[in-house]
Amino acid sequence: MTPDEFRKAGHQLIDWIADYRERIPDLPVRARVVPGEVRKALPVGPPGEVDDFASVLADLDRVIVPGVTQVQHPMHYGWFPSNASLASVLGDIASAGMGTLGISWESCPALTELEEVVCDWLRQLTGLSSQWRGTIHDTASTACLTAMILARERAGDFCKNSSGLQGLAAPLVVYSTAQAHSCVAKAVQLAGFGNDNLRLVAEDPYTRAMLPAALSVAIEDDLAAGRMPAAIVCSVGTTGTTAMDPVGAIAAIAKRHRLWLHVDAAMAGSAMLLPECRHLWQGVEQADSLAWNPHKWLGTILDTALFYVRDVDHLERVMSSNPSYLRSAADGEVTQYRDWGIPLGRRFRALKLWFHLRLEGVAAIRARLRRDLDNARWFASRVEAAEDWEVLAPVPLQTVCIRHVPRDASGRTLAGDALDRHTLAWVDRVNASGQAFLTPALLDGRWMVRVSIGVEATTREHVARLWQMLQQAV
Amino acid sequence: MTPDEFRKAGHQLIDWIADYRERIPDLPVRARVVPGEVRKALPVGPPGEVDDFASVLADLDRVIVPGVTQVQHPMHYGWFPSNASLASVLGDIASAGMGTLGISWESCPALTELEEVVCDWLRQLTGLSSQWRGTIHDTASTACLTAMILARERAGDFCKNSSGLQGLAAPLVVYSTAQAHSCVAKAVQLAGFGNDNLRLVAEDPYTRAMLPAALSVAIEDDLAAGRMPAAIVCSVGTTGTTAMDPVGAIAAIAKRHRLWLHVDAAMAGSAMLLPECRHLWQGVEQADSLAWNPHKWLGTILDTALFYVRDVDHLERVMSSNPSYLRSAADGEVTQYRDWGIPLGRRFRALKLWFHLRLEGVAAIRARLRRDLDNARWFASRVEAAEDWEVLAPVPLQTVCIRHVPRDASGRTLAGDALDRHTLAWVDRVNASGQAFLTPALLDGRWMVRVSIGVEATTREHVARLWQMLQQAV
Repeated sequence: MTPDEFRKAGHQLIDWIADYRERIPDLPVRARVVPGEVRKALPVGPPGEVDDFASVLADLDRVIVPGVTQVQHPMHYGWFPSNASLASVLGDIASAGMGTLGISWESCPALTELEEVVCDWLRQLTGLSSQWRGTIHDTASTACLTAMILARERAGDFCKNSSGLQGLAAPLVVYSTAQAHSCVAKAVQLAGFGNDNLRLVAEDPYTRAMLPAALSVAIEDDLAAGRMPAAIVCSVGTTGTTAMDPVGAIAAIAKRHRLWLHVDAAMAGSAMLLPECRHLWQGVEQADSLAWNPHKWLGTILDTALFYVRDVDHLERVMSSNPSYLRSAADGEVTQYRDWGIPLGRRFRALKLWFHLRLEGVAAIRARLRRDLDNARWFASRVEAAEDWEVLAPVPLQTVCIRHVPRDASGRTLAGDALDRHTLAWVDRVNASGQAFLTPALLDGRWMVRVSIGVEATTREHVARLWQMLQQAV
Repeated sequence: MTPDEFRKAGHQLIDWIADYRERIPDLPVRARVVPGEVRKALPVGPPGEVDDFASVLADLDRVIVPGVTQVQHPMHYGWFPSNASLASVLGDIASAGMGTLGISWESCPALTELEEVVCDWLRQLTGLSSQWRGTIHDTASTACLTAMILARERAGDFCKNSSGLQGLAAPLVVYSTAQAHSCVAKAVQLAGFGNDNLRLVAEDPYTRAMLPAALSVAIEDDLAAGRMPAAIVCSVGTTGTTAMDPVGAIAAIAKRHRLWLHVDAAMAGSAMLLPECRHLWQGVEQADSLAWNPHKWLGTILDTALFYVRDVDHLERVMSSNPSYLRSAADGEVTQYRDWGIPLGRRFRALKLWFHLRLEGVAAIRARLRRDLDNARWFASRVEAAEDWEVLAPVPLQTVCIRHVPRDASGRTLAGDALDRHTLAWVDRVNASGQAFLTPALLDGRWMVRVSIGVEATTREHVARLWQMLQQAV
C-alpha cells in the first residue's frame, strides 16, 4: 500500500471511528453474539485475492462491531473502567503510523527518551519522590511478574546466574492476601516459587485490608520453619472491592525483614493525581516497586501500565541481556528499556500518554476523576438508604459493591444459595437488556455485584438511570 | 476530546503520516540525535495547560522525528527487518479507535475469535498441521519465556501448584546453543532454572547449527549426573547469522528423552509462507511450541509475535487463573486468551494481521519475500566475487554476514584486533553517513557486519547502491 492509498483509506477510517464513537451510546453494552458467531462469519482459510478497503471497512461493521462489548459506553460499569480517550487514540495512531522499532536506544532514541519523560511526568503528578524511575509495561500482570522475579533475585542473591531457584538452601516465600488480583498468585507460580510458598495473610473482615499483625506472624512462622521470606505484594485498591492494604505498616514490616515490597495500585494509581487521595497509599515511598494502569481510569488507551522501581541497578542486573548485535556507541549513557522488562521489542507507547496529557489537560482529567468519586459516593448513599439493598464494603474509590437482599412475607431475608441465585438472576437481566453492564464477583463465597463507575462518558444522569434500572430489575 | 474534534485532528494526523512515510527515503537512516537530546527538548514537568493539536503535531516534527531511526527506510539493513505495512497500520488504527478491552471472551468476543481465525490462517499459510493452535504475543521473547515455563511445569509435574522449582528432587536443565537469541538465556534465567542449568550445545563451525550428536551427549551427561533434562530451544534462523538448527534430528532426541521442544523461528517464520523454504524447519511438527514474528519480515506492525502450541490443555493448566470477577456464562465454550500467556489484558492485535493479509494479499507478500531472498543471494554473490571481501556464513534467508579483509603491501591479510578496528570503522562510516544502516555483531569473538535485507521498500537498486557504498567505505 502506497502512502497515497493509505491517505485515502486512512481518512475513511478516521470518519468511521468518529462515527462509531458517536453511536456507542446506541449500541448494546454487552456484545450479543454467541460463542463462535464471529468466527463463523469469517472465512475458514486465508484470503486468496486482495480485498479493497471498502469491503474491509464493511466487515468491521458486519462482523466485528456486533462482537464488541462496549467498554466506552456510558452505561458500562463492569470490571474496571477501561477508558480509551480519543486524545490517547491519536497518540496511538501516530505510533502506528511511524512504524518505529524499540529494541535499543539506538533503534529509536525518541521512543526511549519520551518514555522516560512521560513516566517522570506521571511520577510528579502522583506525588512520588524523585527516587522512582518508571517504564511502560503492557499490563500490571507483567509488572507483577517482573516484581516477583526482582524479589526472587534479591532474596536469592542473583541465583539466576547460578542454579536458579533449584539451588537455594531454603525456600523463598511471598505474602499477599486472598483479595489481591489473580495476577499475584499467577506471578508467584510463573516465577517458580510454587503456590505452597504464597501466604494469603488474613484481612480485616469489613475493609478487606491486610492485617499487619497477621503478616508479622506469618513471616515469623516461616522464619521459624527455616523458610526465607522474600516479598510482599500489597494491594492499593483490590479488584473485588477496591480494598486498601495499609502500605505504611506493611512497609515497616518489609523493612524489618528486608523483604521486597511490590505495590499493586493498578486501579487506584489514577486517583493519586488527586492530593486528597494520596493518604490511601501513605508509605508507598518505602516500597521497592509499584505498578498502576493509566489504561484504566486515567483514560490512556490499552496497553499502558506503569512500572516504577527505586533500585534501577538491581532491575537492570536482573533483567538485562547484552548480545553483540544490539551493542551501540551510546551504551552506558542511555536507558535501555529492554533491560527493564521481559520483551525485547517495544512499541512507541509513550506517545499515547504524551498526547493524552497534553490534549486532555491535567486539570480536566482531575475534574473527571473527582466527578467519578462523587458519583460513586452518591450511588452508594442511594443504595444504603434503600430498603433491602446493601453496600458491602467501603467505597474509597469509584467502585460500589452491592447486593439486593429481599424479604419474604414473614420478613425473613433471602440467604445462602437462594440469595446467590437472586443476585445472578438480576444482574443477568440487566446485562441481557443491553442497557447497562455490571460484573458479579464472589465475596466471602457469595455473589455480589460490582458497580464500577468511571467511564469517560458516564455522568450523574447515567448513574441515576442505572440505579433506577437496578431497582426495577430485582 | 469529542468525536468531532477527533475527526478533525485525525484527518490532519493521517495526512501527516502519509507525508512522513513519503519522505522517509530523504531522512537519515540512523537517528542523528545524541543521548539526552530528545529529553532536553521536552518540558521537565507535566503540561499545565491544554495544548492544541497543531502544537502537538508540530512537536512530532520538531522533537520526535529527528530521534527516530528509520527502520522503514529502503537503505535500512540493520538488525532484522521491522516492516510496518500501511495496511497493517490501518488495522492498528482501527484497533486504537474502537478502544476495546480484551480480558475475557465476554469483554470482546470479536477480539478473541478474530485472533483465533488469523492465527489459524497463518498456520495454514506456513504449512503447519491442524494440531497447532496459536495466539498473538507481544514478542518472541515473551513467547520463549512462556515456553520455558510450560517445559518446567511438564518436567516438574505442575510444581507451580506446590513448591515450585524449590521442591524438585533434581535440577531441570535446558539445552540450546550460543547462537540462540539472547531471549533464550534470559527466559531460562527468568523462569528460575538458573544459568548453570542452561547447556550451550556445540555447533557446526561453519553453519552454526546445533550438532545433534553433541546434544545427545549433553543430555546423557546430565542424566548420569542426576539432573533432569527438561527442554530444548531450537533456532530456525539465529539472529547472528540466520543459522538453522536441524529441527528433525533434534525433535527425535527430544522425543526419546521426553523433553519440551520450543522452536524459535522469530525471523524465519515469514519464509515458511514459501513452500520452497519449509525444508528449513522440517521436523517442526514434532515440536511442542513454536514462535515467529509477523512484525519482522512479513510486515505486520509491531507487536505481532505468533505463539503456537499443540497441547492447549497443558498450556491452559499452566497459565490459567479464574478469579470470580472474570467468570461468565460462556466459560468452557470459548477460548480465554488470558490463560494462554502472561498478561491479563490484551489489545485487539488480530486486526492488524487481518488488514495486512486482506489488503496486501498473500500473493504480493510471497512475491516480496522471494524478491528479498533473491536480493540476498545476489548481494552475497557480489561479495564473494570481490577481492578482500568474505561471506562468513551460509545465506539460507535474507541476511548476509560479511567482512572486508584488506591486505598490506606484502600481501598479509589484516587479522585480530586490527581487523576488528577496521570492521567497526567502516561500518561506523556507513552508519554515520545517514545513507544506509547496518549492524555489526560478534562471530567467534570477532566483529563482522550483518546485511539484513527485507525492508518493504528495498529493491535490487537499493542493494546495488549499498554494495557500491560499502566498497567505497572500506
